[in-house]
Amino acid sequence: MFKINENYQKLPGSYLFSTIAKKVAAYQQAHPDKKIIRLGIGDVTLPLVPAVIQAIHKAADEMGQAETFHGYAPDLGYSFLRETIAENDYKKLGCDIEADEIFVSDGAKSDCGNIQEIFSEDSRIAVCDPVYPVYVDSNVMAGRTGEYDAESGTWSNVIYMPCTAENGFVPELPKETPDLIYLCVPNNPTGTALTRDQLKVWVDYANREGAVILYDAAYEAYISDEDVPHTIYEIEGARTCAIEFRSFSKKAGFTGVRLGFTVVPKDLKCKDVPLHALWARRHGTKFNGAPYIEQRAGEAVYSEEGNRQVMEQVAYYKRNARVIYDGLKEAGYTVFGGVNSPYVWLKTEEMTSWEFFDYLLEYANVVGTPGSGFGPSGEGYFRLTGFGTYENTVEAVERLKALRKTGGGR
Amino acid sequence: MFKINENYQKLPGSYLFSTIAKKVAAYQQAHPDKKIIRLGIGDVTLPLVPAVIQAIHKAADEMGQAETFHGYAPDLGYSFLRETIAENDYKKLGCDIEADEIFVSDGAKSDCGNIQEIFSEDSRIAVCDPVYPVYVDSNVMAGRTGEYDAESGTWSNVIYMPCTAENGFVPELPKETPDLIYLCVPNNPTGTALTRDQLKVWVDYANREGAVILYDAAYEAYISDEDVPHTIYEIEGARTCAIEFRSFSKKAGFTGVRLGFTVVPKDLKCKDVPLHALWARRHGTKFNGAPYIEQRAGEAVYSEEGNRQVMEQVAYYKRNARVIYDGLKEAGYTVFGGVNSPYVWLKTEEMTSWEFFDYLLEYANVVGTPGSGFGPSGEGYFRLTGFGTYENTVEAVERLKALRKTGGGR
Repeated sequence: MFKINENYQKLPGSYLFSTIAKKVAAYQQAHPDKKIIRLGIGDVTLPLVPAVIQAIHKAADEMGQAETFHGYAPDLGYSFLRETIAENDYKKLGCDIEADEIFVSDGAKSDCGNIQEIFSEDSRIAVCDPVYPVYVDSNVMAGRTGEYDAESGTWSNVIYMPCTAENGFVPELPKETPDLIYLCVPNNPTGTALTRDQLKVWVDYANREGAVILYDAAYEAYISDEDVPHTIYEIEGARTCAIEFRSFSKKAGFTGVRLGFTVVPKDLKCKDVPLHALWARRHGTKFNGAPYIEQRAGEAVYSEEGNRQVMEQVAYYKRNARVIYDGLKEAGYTVFGGVNSPYVWLKTEEMTSWEFFDYLLEYANVVGTPGSGFGPSGEGYFRLTGFGTYENTVEAVERLKALRKTGGGR
Repeated sequence: MFKINENYQKLPGSYLFSTIAKKVAAYQQAHPDKKIIRLGIGDVTLPLVPAVIQAIHKAADEMGQAETFHGYAPDLGYSFLRETIAENDYKKLGCDIEADEIFVSDGAKSDCGNIQEIFSEDSRIAVCDPVYPVYVDSNVMAGRTGEYDAESGTWSNVIYMPCTAENGFVPELPKETPDLIYLCVPNNPTGTALTRDQLKVWVDYANREGAVILYDAAYEAYISDEDVPHTIYEIEGARTCAIEFRSFSKKAGFTGVRLGFTVVPKDLKCKDVPLHALWARRHGTKFNGAPYIEQRAGEAVYSEEGNRQVMEQVAYYKRNARVIYDGLKEAGYTVFGGVNSPYVWLKTEEMTSWEFFDYLLEYANVVGTPGSGFGPSGEGYFRLTGFGTYENTVEAVERLKALRKTGGGR
């Protein structure tokens, strides 16, 4: 009789967003006259920009003519896109990354989830806490995380690096040495980032200890601060210790288009085996290339017009985040993030994350995301996002300010 | 120091298509006046049909307007596509498959490669020989296949089921009991298929022994024979033992569009754990849905006009395959396939597969694929495909006929 991968059975249910949806639906049904504003979403809401739409139409027409039809794409991506990325995202910043070190894919989520496959089964992983759940979950499925303790919400064989107000959301070097270190910068959900100096500490550590940094830079486009690097390859030494994941989702609104890329420098080796060769083999065996139309859409993001258009959208979301950050701060909340990120992270003070969720829903009709859903150190925090409309964002902030003033329900 | 997944190092180099490319390039350089015809390709050559192009343009326009923009897709696919598939590919044939048993993905290659993840690490796999290499390679990467013997081209822990002229390309039930049985019907590369009665033997066997059939039906659209089933769910009992992979690549020319789906019936369980839940969890954790535009393109394949247009393309490729089959048979070659498949499989007689490759290249300027590249039992065979133009296909066949008559070079 066949057997299943028992590691899947260890995964606790992922109820965060479904619980939110249920609570919101129940509240709306009981109060049909109330206008609920959703600032819990991590999805973009603005449409694709004209330059991208144009590129899609053009590529579609090419696919409809025998002379310009494109069948199987090269496994690792079309040269036109890989070269555009190398030039714009790396060489312009002085980073020594070549086009053939870039692997185009259907998104950062797939790559972040699949990357663990090329490492040994007994690899020890370290993650920031709170964090995007895919890093841990994909390692649970591969059997690397030990046992789950429901009370603490932690796995016995995972090294957690708390990122809280107490340490300024800068993870400390772990006491036990990990093999793989997941860093998400700017961070989801806290909205905070690391400076060049802070990241240099990690690059040096990884090179010294023989660890690999899995650097998720999906929110790179939101960086404003001069001292926050746009890529880990701005840091000397990163070519021998870091893999970087990038996404078009939050920069160009590609959440429903699906395009991302991963950089594996050829200098990153385990003894004499380059990880580049392993990831190429994985792509070649289990993936068949990103669609031609999507790769042309991605290329359009780098055109002068495309870049201007998508950066206007990023600015729109950032303005929302700023409105939330400034408004809540003014009202007396303790807030973080919102500068290099679409996310604002706030303290829920005497309430738990879920109590604060219920409180906001009932007294302000505003929906956010309980921080505890992103890991144990997220307890006592709450995430609001800049992905709503400007008008709704302003209104939600006014309601939170008013609530703070009246202390509604408290 | 971090360590790699050593299983990757066990994979022998995949030189088949690169060796072919090198040999062809060298020949062309030495004989620049010769017109080489390529019938080795497994990629489609006709452009996307008008109904699909229209759907892509329409979906692109929707993505450019806030009111109709689509962000993250549902992990398992949009209902509009899942319901269309359930209705057209299953219910119309009397098969009891529901929309929520269909998982939309970026292609059958990804799904065939990833499906092994949900099974136990010590699962024993069985494959037809010769066969599409992804089944074995993805299990090598997961450490299930034991050691490779370069001389025989086999793995110590894989059960091979030879499919040759001697057994009519119908695999025999294996002596050792496998946990997972990969069946590709119609088969790549042999172009042969199984009848309902032949497939029933496998479904009964899998149910009796507690094995899972991983049924790759990527070439379903090419089936002509009345007694060859279009889906394994036409066979009674398949709901408790079979997962089916389907693709839009060879049916609708989507090799560069990337869309496929996998059917996991809810009745397929290991004790009380439905595999449906495990595959859903894998999709939810490591995949972010197929692009909206591609899913609308897939839907268009099922419209009256779209279906007529794509089936005309399938008929075009099948006519080519028939031209090859009939022409070579007439000339005295021993040929197989070509009826329920775009592939024709022929005996190379006193030559090895590679000798025959060199012979055809030199004396007929025709490129095909050596059968030995698909597994040890492919030795002595050769694959030609119907994916070229009709005119080139006719000319290639004339050359092969002439070669047979003159015995050029022999």
